[in-house]
Formats: sequence, C-alpha cells, structure tokens
Amino acid sequence: MKQYVFGADIGGTTVKLGFFTSEGELLEKWEITTRKDEGGRFILSDVADSIKAKIAEKELEKDSVAGVGIGVPGPVKDDGTVLGCVNLGWGEFNVEKEAEKLLELPVKVGNDANMASLGEMWQGGGKGYQSIIMVTLGTGVGGGIIMNGKMLYGTNGAGGEIGHICVDESETEVCGCGKKGCLEQYTSATGITRMAVSELNNTDRPSKLRSVQYMSAKEVFDAAKDGDELALELVEKHGKILGKALASIACVCDPEAFVIGGGVSRAGDILINTTAKYYQQYVFHACKNTKFELASLGNDAGIYGCAEAILTK
Amino acid sequence: MKQYVFGADIGGTTVKLGFFTSEGELLEKWEITTRKDEGGRFILSDVADSIKAKIAEKELEKDSVAGVGIGVPGPVKDDGTVLGCVNLGWGEFNVEKEAEKLLELPVKVGNDANMASLGEMWQGGGKGYQSIIMVTLGTGVGGGIIMNGKMLYGTNGAGGEIGHICVDESETEVCGCGKKGCLEQYTSATGITRMAVSELNNTDRPSKLRSVQYMSAKEVFDAAKDGDELALELVEKHGKILGKALASIACVCDPEAFVIGGGVSRAGDILINTTAKYYQQYVFHACKNTKFELASLGNDAGIYGCAEAILTK
Repeated sequence: MKQYVFGADIGGTTVKLGFFTSEGELLEKWEITTRKDEGGRFILSDVADSIKAKIAEKELEKDSVAGVGIGVPGPVKDDGTVLGCVNLGWGEFNVEKEAEKLLELPVKVGNDANMASLGEMWQGGGKGYQSIIMVTLGTGVGGGIIMNGKMLYGTNGAGGEIGHICVDESETEVCGCGKKGCLEQYTSATGITRMAVSELNNTDRPSKLRSVQYMSAKEVFDAAKDGDELALELVEKHGKILGKALASIACVCDPEAFVIGGGVSRAGDILINTTAKYYQQYVFHACKNTKFELASLGNDAGIYGCAEAILTK
Repeated sequence: MKQYVFGADIGGTTVKLGFFTSEGELLEKWEITTRKDEGGRFILSDVADSIKAKIAEKELEKDSVAGVGIGVPGPVKDDGTVLGCVNLGWGEFNVEKEAEKLLELPVKVGNDANMASLGEMWQGGGKGYQSIIMVTLGTGVGGGIIMNGKMLYGTNGAGGEIGHICVDESETEVCGCGKKGCLEQYTSATGITRMAVSELNNTDRPSKLRSVQYMSAKEVFDAAKDGDELALELVEKHGKILGKALASIACVCDPEAFVIGGGVSRAGDILINTTAKYYQQYVFHACKNTKFELASLGNDAGIYGCAEAILTK
C-alpha cells in the first residue's frame, strides 16, 4: 500500500523537500542547501540521503513509499533527461535514472515550473480541474500545461514556455532569450516595472509612482488600486497584453482554466479581472467560458507537484 | 486478433469510408451519401449498415475487427459527445455511444480536422513523429495537435483551433468567427486570395495577377514561382504571418514537426521554405529545430486518422 510520497524541488540555493500522504496532505517540509561544488555532482546524493534519513526517522516501510518527484530548474525531456541546468552546474544527463539508483525508489523528474503547475492543479488554485495552463508571472514569465492530468513537456522541454511568445515586433529592447518583444518583457514583474519606469521617464504626467524609491510590480498595482491614473493605465496595458496572449493560447490548447501565479499574482483580483476582460475581447467563442484562478500554494507549489508527478507517473 | 479497422469520415455531402489493416494499409475505400433529412437522424445508421455490409461481404470474423473511427465536422469532447454539427443538422449528443450501439463494435469519435491530423501522423507527412501540429490551409485554417501520439481535443473541443489566433488588431474585415484579425483571414486559401485582390485594387503596380480571371491561392503561388514581384511579396507576407504564428504555437506545445496540409499546401516547397524562414526569425531558441513537412494523404487523411484513432483509443 503506497501511502506516502516525497517531493524535492531543486533550486539554485536550496532544495525544498516535502513528505506527503498520497492523498496530498503535506506532513512535513524542510530544506537542504544546494551544494553546487564540482559541477553540482553532490546535489542528487544529498537529496537521496536526506530522503532516506526521513524514511528511517519515520520508520516507513519501503513498500509504503510511492516514490520521489524531483523538480529541476531547466528543460527536462519526458524520459527524465535534463538538457542542462546552468544554475546547478549540470550538463545533459538522465537525472531520473541516476536518482532511481541512489534512492532505490521510483523517481519522476520534471522542470520546476511544470512541477509547480502540477502542484497547483493537485492541491492549489487549479484543484478540481483536469486541464489547466499555469502562468507564472515572476522575474520572467513561465508556463506549465497540463492536459487531462498529464504534463505537456514538449519535444525540447519547451512546452509551456509562453513567456517567449512574440507580442510586439516593434520592441527595441532585447529579452533574456535574445529575441525582442517577448510576452515576459511586458507581463513579468520585471516587465511591468520596466513599463512603469519608461512611462515615468518619457512623460511628465503626475503619478504617485513618481515618489516611489524602488519601483516594483507591487508598487504599480498598489497605486492602481488607489486610483492612480497612470498606474491604472499600466495595469490595463499589462492585462491587455496578457489577456490577448492567453486568448491565442486558448485557441491552441483550450484548457478548462488559467491559473495565475508568481509574485505579480499577489495583486489579486485586479490582475485577474483585467486579464479576463481582455481575454474575452480576443478569444475564440468556443473558449469564452475558460476560468481564471489565482495560484494558492506559493513556494510550496513545487514540492506538491513533485509528489503528484510520482502518483501519476 | 484484431487485424482490421474501419474509418468513416462524415462530411456535409458524402461519408468517406475506409477498410484498413491494423498496420495501416488501406485495403478498400468507398463513399455513401450523407443523408441529412430529419436533422441527420439516418446518418449514423447508414454508416453502420454500410460497414456491417462490408464485414459480411469480406466474411470477417467479428473478433478480427478492432473497431470504427468516426470523424465529424464539428467540435467533439473527449468522451465522444458532439457539441453540434451545423452541416449535418445534429445538436448535442454522444455519437460514440450511439454508434457503438448500432455497430456493436468499439467506436472512437473525433473532429474531422483532428482525425486528418492523426491520419497524416500515422501514414502521411507526419509519419515517424510522435508529436505534431497539423496545419490545414484550406477555405479556413484548421489545426490538429497530437502530443505523444494522443490527440489534444481541448475542453470545449477547440484544441488546435489555431485559425482564430488574433494576428492583426488593426483588421477592419470580420472573420467567419465574428472577430477581426484572425490567422485564417490571411493564411487560408481565401485569405491569400483576399490579400491579392486588395493589393491589386489598391495599387497600380504591374503584376501577372492582373490578367487572372478567377483569383486563387494557386494563381498567387504560381505567379510567385514565375518571379512575379507582387505575388512574391504576397507569398512573403503569407509566410511571415504563418511562420510567426507557428513560432508562438511552438512556445506553447513544442511539437517535433508542423505538417502543412490543405489546398494551399499544394504550393509545395515555396510555402514550406518561406514559412520556415519566418518561423526561425520569431521562435524561442529551444524550438529552432522543429521540422516542417507537407501533408501527403490529401482527402484520405480523414479515414486514415479515424482508423488510427481506434487503434490508439
């Protein structure tokens, strides 16, 4: 009887670990340091040792553990091959096989953004849906696509890389990916901050934002909630670019819901309502009832998703 | 031993039927009239009678038949529920269950464009791939998305409805879907014809196309192949709009290949090369090696896909 499952979300600084029941209750979570020495060769064994120690501490029968899901910050193929994780020092190798050897348990490896999506669908903002697209508005814009309960990884591990859809050909600044006009240049936390700074520098319109010392997405959304006209316009522009892009994506995958997470999503209803308004303006009629939800697991979404990935492997 | 399988591609005028080996060899094909009287209530029983007659004629053991795949011209949910087929007179009902009762065989129902995609992947331009996006450039623009061998139907049966991605907000003419600026307004056969007529009417540039009696996508591509400057520009514009849209779609689903079919695809290499050129200009780096293939089954793609749908049900 497989009653328990582990999740390990490997980040550039720490590995977040979670011990769950197979029903999705988080029994315990902890962190270990991501040891990046020597090309990151100790990371997987550190994870394995930590989980084995937890299994011993809890005196779990090996048969009661369904396995370990692992999230990594880079593209991952369906078979568990990681195509390089710059932040960890890793090149290309099959992390799944390597971790299975170390743990002597079933392992499922996935991209961290994808794992977070799976977590949100299992126990977060996407709970109850079978097909969602998770949109993470953080430093960049990430995405995770789950159709009928299964993650869409993509041929090159680029499934759900919606941040790099070109939305403005006339852009002159370069995106981190090397192209110009990517969705994340406008709709990430960095993106809306960039739009705000540009608007303040290029006009002399009055705005509360002029007195802000450190500009951020939060400052923009807070000023908009306070009725600041310039901030409201930025929020409308943000919602229009995002809503229109999600309308295009709906014509491709037709999910039940979009689940919006990442730092920007803390803006809450104003973000969801503005995005949904423009989504309605651009979307194909068959997809007009697609739901918009806020993510709810925050930084734990990854470990939840890792656990769920094993249960649905 | 399931050696045989049937496909039935229901169109507004005729039903195309195919009798296949389970290895994908088309042994026989035939057509019956689509009887649309009384809300199309006889269509499914006509299909069932025709297939039963073929089974009797060929003296097939019932156990040797894997089932019947059925393609219909409208949105279909994963469970076989058709959400209305205007061209047949059908409202909403579960075609799969109904057909299984009539045929006493397993049935899988899908949208006709999706079935054609599955057919092209099985025995056509997408053969050998596991994940393709089929792009049908006909009167409209249809799409079919197959990931890891499975059709992506979408929550509302709108998976792959890529023709209705908004690509030009400044468009003044209305698309069949009621919106403005949809991909199919430019890249379908009708779309490129419309662009040609508009360019000829709004300029007095010289072009061979001025002497064409009935403008069509074929005339435009043929003139471009002959070096006509205006036609070449139209083909470039067509390729840019299509290539850019497919680059966006690659950021969502990351397929191994795009398979281009429909009447416009008869233009051949010039279409593929132009589209691929602009795709490269806009695509996320991880997806730069995605292949472009021409569809090869023509009007038989549907029955092939219906047969394959049963084998992978």
